[in-house]
Amino acid sequence: MQLPSAVTITEVGPRDGLQNEDRLLDTAQKVEFVERLAATGLKRIEAASFVSPKAIPQMRDASELMRLLPRRDGVTYIALVPNEVGARNAIAAQADELATVVSASETHNRRNVNRTVEESLAEMEKVAGLAAVAGIPWAGYISTAFGCPYEGAVPAGQVIRIAKRLRELGAYAIALGDTIGAGNPRQVSALVRALRDALPDAPLRMHFHDTRGTALANVLAALEAGVDGFDGSVGGLGGCPYAPGAAGNVATEDVVYMLHEMGIETGVDLGALVEAARWAERLVDRPLPGRVKDAGTAALAKAP
Amino acid sequence: MQLPSAVTITEVGPRDGLQNEDRLLDTAQKVEFVERLAATGLKRIEAASFVSPKAIPQMRDASELMRLLPRRDGVTYIALVPNEVGARNAIAAQADELATVVSASETHNRRNVNRTVEESLAEMEKVAGLAAVAGIPWAGYISTAFGCPYEGAVPAGQVIRIAKRLRELGAYAIALGDTIGAGNPRQVSALVRALRDALPDAPLRMHFHDTRGTALANVLAALEAGVDGFDGSVGGLGGCPYAPGAAGNVATEDVVYMLHEMGIETGVDLGALVEAARWAERLVDRPLPGRVKDAGTAALAKAP
Repeated sequence: MQLPSAVTITEVGPRDGLQNEDRLLDTAQKVEFVERLAATGLKRIEAASFVSPKAIPQMRDASELMRLLPRRDGVTYIALVPNEVGARNAIAAQADELATVVSASETHNRRNVNRTVEESLAEMEKVAGLAAVAGIPWAGYISTAFGCPYEGAVPAGQVIRIAKRLRELGAYAIALGDTIGAGNPRQVSALVRALRDALPDAPLRMHFHDTRGTALANVLAALEAGVDGFDGSVGGLGGCPYAPGAAGNVATEDVVYMLHEMGIETGVDLGALVEAARWAERLVDRPLPGRVKDAGTAALAKAP
Repeated sequence: MQLPSAVTITEVGPRDGLQNEDRLLDTAQKVEFVERLAATGLKRIEAASFVSPKAIPQMRDASELMRLLPRRDGVTYIALVPNEVGARNAIAAQADELATVVSASETHNRRNVNRTVEESLAEMEKVAGLAAVAGIPWAGYISTAFGCPYEGAVPAGQVIRIAKRLRELGAYAIALGDTIGAGNPRQVSALVRALRDALPDAPLRMHFHDTRGTALANVLAALEAGVDGFDGSVGGLGGCPYAPGAAGNVATEDVVYMLHEMGIETGVDLGALVEAARWAERLVDRPLPGRVKDAGTAALAKAP
């Protein structure tokens, strides 16, 4: 089994995880959340989405949060930006990196941001211009890359076409989102290989949901196809508010656990990450779906 | 990605699934459970364990259940037998196939059946004799094959040595159990390949637990190593009563879902199996951990 020796994890709990939480958290709570995550050794944390507070009230304090976060050596705080205004605000708030999202399927993109895919890409050109001037990198997410709740199967060619456009616009990395947890390992393997053929130099990242329990199998398929970047949401917090039936980002600690068991380095302290997942459960005051935080990491040392 | 085109599923819900349930079910309820499973197209069902009713009261009616089960063409009802007495009773009750279990680790075997591994193998020699006279096949399970809650890591050589002995005694297939859900895909791949080198003719089956969310990734690794037989427990019912922290057989419907999505045939009607999982939840009157029964199988047809 040929696998990368190290993997970079991007933690999306404070953004993708929290954005569905109805109960509004204080900025101080969010700062503590991000701080606890950074203390585990996670080097990349998506801290907020710079969207309209009307669309997602939980993200109303994105600028304040980004400004308040104490900077740590080597830790990148990422801002999701849906448009030019968001990018401007994120840059003003000193985000280290931007992320944009476009759906691979027209219907999901329209329902998500009320734009055609072309209109979203045109908006990203403006974001790219702002990022270039500010001198910060941006990554291009393609959501519903493995299936759309409205259109069903999504042709690989559509994903590759959008990925090429994002690279032309200046995205330093391409991230594929399995927004509704519909991907399977064979599909992941095929799509990653096709994408690597089309864009051999583009760093790829996978954002899996565990809706149907397949997330870690999809991680494995992606690893075998050479991917060395994965998103996770601590505890399995969150989902996608616009996709019916979409529950469950894969839990970061479950990904890290499997990687470590296979001898793949992440730089993350798994014990500390499990503690952060348990803290996140108390933060949102309900059980989260991650498995390792309940089963324990030390399977082999738990016996009497 | 080279994978088998078809896989045989062994459903263990009525045995491994139910044996931890404190509330005793009626024999009629168990017959209905097995009947519902057989109606989904499952061809192999572990229906009962022929153990002492003092050890596992839930299995007190194993003989009656096995006798009552209406036989269907091509459906095999399997009896787990811990010893010679159990084998005798299972054969008298007209079980179609026997299964024996020995742990790969001494400590787990002693705590599970109060015997050394050698003593268990000696007992299996007697079971093998009875099965041969009766003309029915038996499969040899090796539990804690991927890790022991008492001893920690289990050397692959120990698993291979026991597998060879089981084959010499007449086991027609070898099944590896990840009793505490401690296995990882790299380990599964390596152990399966080592076992295939040592016993090229032995059919292999994998019995995974999803304790830490890795079961489907382990299924994928085993498929890639050529395994085409997997156990599952409908809904994710059950665990191992003697292993601390061992919760969660992988849900049969989650395995079948992933296989079907990858174009691998199982002969099982997934929709019917999901219904059986929901029925099993009502049977035991609590939520079961399987994912697909909650998320739905028709991810791509759920949208408005």
